[in-house]
Amino acid sequence: MIDQTRLPEELVYVETNNLEEIFDAIKRLVVRGAPAIGCAAALGLAAVAQHYQNDFYEQLCRDAEYLNTSRPTAVNLAWALDRCLKAADYQTLTLDKAKKTLLEEAKAILAEDIAMCRCIGENGLHLFERENMTVLTHCNAGALATGDYGTAISPIYLAHERGLKPQVFADATRPLLQGSRLTAWELVRAGVPVTVICDSMAGHVMREGKIDFIITGADRIAANGDAANKIGTYGLAVLAAYHNIPLYVAAPYSTFDFSLADGSQIPIEERGSEEVACGFGKRTAPQGAEVYNPAFDVTPAEMISGFITDRGFIPKTDFKQLKKYFD
Amino acid sequence: MIDQTRLPEELVYVETNNLEEIFDAIKRLVVRGAPAIGCAAALGLAAVAQHYQNDFYEQLCRDAEYLNTSRPTAVNLAWALDRCLKAADYQTLTLDKAKKTLLEEAKAILAEDIAMCRCIGENGLHLFERENMTVLTHCNAGALATGDYGTAISPIYLAHERGLKPQVFADATRPLLQGSRLTAWELVRAGVPVTVICDSMAGHVMREGKIDFIITGADRIAANGDAANKIGTYGLAVLAAYHNIPLYVAAPYSTFDFSLADGSQIPIEERGSEEVACGFGKRTAPQGAEVYNPAFDVTPAEMISGFITDRGFIPKTDFKQLKKYFD
Repeated sequence: MIDQTRLPEELVYVETNNLEEIFDAIKRLVVRGAPAIGCAAALGLAAVAQHYQNDFYEQLCRDAEYLNTSRPTAVNLAWALDRCLKAADYQTLTLDKAKKTLLEEAKAILAEDIAMCRCIGENGLHLFERENMTVLTHCNAGALATGDYGTAISPIYLAHERGLKPQVFADATRPLLQGSRLTAWELVRAGVPVTVICDSMAGHVMREGKIDFIITGADRIAANGDAANKIGTYGLAVLAAYHNIPLYVAAPYSTFDFSLADGSQIPIEERGSEEVACGFGKRTAPQGAEVYNPAFDVTPAEMISGFITDRGFIPKTDFKQLKKYFD
Repeated sequence: MIDQTRLPEELVYVETNNLEEIFDAIKRLVVRGAPAIGCAAALGLAAVAQHYQNDFYEQLCRDAEYLNTSRPTAVNLAWALDRCLKAADYQTLTLDKAKKTLLEEAKAILAEDIAMCRCIGENGLHLFERENMTVLTHCNAGALATGDYGTAISPIYLAHERGLKPQVFADATRPLLQGSRLTAWELVRAGVPVTVICDSMAGHVMREGKIDFIITGADRIAANGDAANKIGTYGLAVLAAYHNIPLYVAAPYSTFDFSLADGSQIPIEERGSEEVACGFGKRTAPQGAEVYNPAFDVTPAEMISGFITDRGFIPKTDFKQLKKYFD
C-alpha cells in the first residue's frame, strides 16, 4: 500500500509481512479513509491466516479483534473484519476450504469497494453538463481513501476519462492537509488540473465565479440527510448557499445511518491539540493558548443539493424519503 | 524590535545597527503590520541619520528611498518616510536642528500610533456589554502589528484591563498563520484567554453559539465601506451574516481611501505559491499542482456592522456618509 504519511514528498509503497505491521500501518495513517482501511485489514488478515494450522478460527478471531483496535472509530474496519470471520467460520468447513473462502471474501470486499466507487462516478457524471467545469472539493475522498476511484473524486475521474476536462479546486483542509497533500497529489498523477487553495480562500474563490459546483464526501449521513464530514464542510456549505453554488455529497449506501433521526445525534470527534498547534513538525501556536479541534462538522440537509450514491443520484426533492429511496 | 518570524517558539529581540539591517528586518517580516513597519522605518532612519555630516539631506533622501523598497505595498511605510523627509528639510534648518527635528518626528509617528491604538480601543469598548463575551478575530491586528495595542485587538485589551473578562477565538489564518503564531502569542502574554482554531472551524464554532461578535482589522476601506483585509475575512463575514453575529472592522482613519468608490477598485495582491505549498518548512502540496494565493479579500459594507476607528465608532446606519462622518 502507498504510505500516505509521506505524500506528497515521496511515493513509497509499504509491504506488510505480519499482523503487527498491518496494525501499525492503519494506526499511523499509512493507509487512511474508511473504505481503504476496511480493504487493507481484510486482505491483511486473510493473507496472514493462510499460514495458520492449529486453532485456525480461534487465532483468526483473536487477530481480527486485535486489528479492530488499530482505529476503533472507522466503521468499515469492524465491518470488514466481521465479514471475514463470518466467511471463514471453521465449524462447517475444512481448514483448506476456510482459508480459501477467507481470501475470497477479502478480495470480494475490495472488488465491491471498486464497484461502489465506479457506481458513484457514474451516478455523478451527469453533473458535468459541459466541458471545463470547475469543482471544489474538501479533504480527501479520492482513490487514496478507497479501493479505487474514491467517492467525491470518482465522478471527476470519470468526467476526465470521458474527455469532459474537469478542473478542480482543492481546499488544503487543515489541520492535516489531506486536500493539498493527498487530493492534489492523486489528481496530478491522474492528469486532472488541480489548484490548491487555503480553506480560508474558498469564499473569495466562489465570489470570483470560479466554482461551478462542490462535491465532498461524508462520514455519516442521518435519516433526514444531515451529513457529517471533515471539519470545514459546513462552512463551505453556508458559503455555497450564499453564492448559489450547488453542493453535492458523495457516499455509498453504507454511510447512511437511518438509526439517527438528524445530524444533531451524530457524535463529533474532538482530536488532539497538536494537530492544530504543532502542524508540520513545527510549533505554530504558543504554549498557554487553548486549542479547539473538532474533526468533523454537520452540514444540514437543506444545504445539500443532492447525494451521489452507489445506488443512484438522490436529488434534494427526495430527501424527505431517503430510506424509502434505498428500499 | 521583536523578531516576529521566530514567534511563537522564541521571543528574540533584534537590534539593528545600520540601514541595511533595518531594511532586512522589514523585508523578512521580522517586523510586520503596516503601522509597525511605519514606526520601525521612521525610527530607524532617524537613528541612522544622527551620524550623517556632509550631504545630510541628500543622504537622507537616498536612504528613505532605499527603505521604501523593502515592502513597497505597505502604505504606512512610504507615508512615515515622507513625513521624516519633510520634517528634516535641510533648506531652512541647521544640521543639528534638522537631526533633532527628524528624531522628534519619528518619535511623534510612534506616539501618534500609540494614541491611535488607544482611541480605537476606547471606541470599541462599548461592544463588551457584559463580562465573558467571546470575540472571534482573524490574522493579527494586535500589538505586534502596531506601536501599541493594535487595532482589532485594542478593544479586547482594554476590556481585559477593565475587568470585563473577554475571551478570544483566534483563526489560525493560513497561509502564514499570523492568528495562531502572533495573535494567540500576544494574548497569552497579556493574560487574555485565547483559543486557536483552524480557519475551517469558524463556521462550526459560530453554529455552536460560541461567538458573540467578530472584530477584524482592515488594509484598505473604500468610500462605500467595502473593506479589504487578510484573505478569509470575506468568508467569515458571510458566515457571520448567516449566524446573525455582528462583524466589526477596526482601523484608523488613514485606512479609509475615499478615492475608491467601492471595494471592486481595491487591488488584490496575489502572493507566491510557496506560502501555501511549502508552509512550515515542509512541502505540503505536490509538484504539478497549481496554487492560488490571493493575500486579501474584500468584505462588502453590508456585511459589516460597524467601524471602530480612532475618531469614533461608525454604526452601519452612517455608512452612506462615511466621508462626511470624518469631515
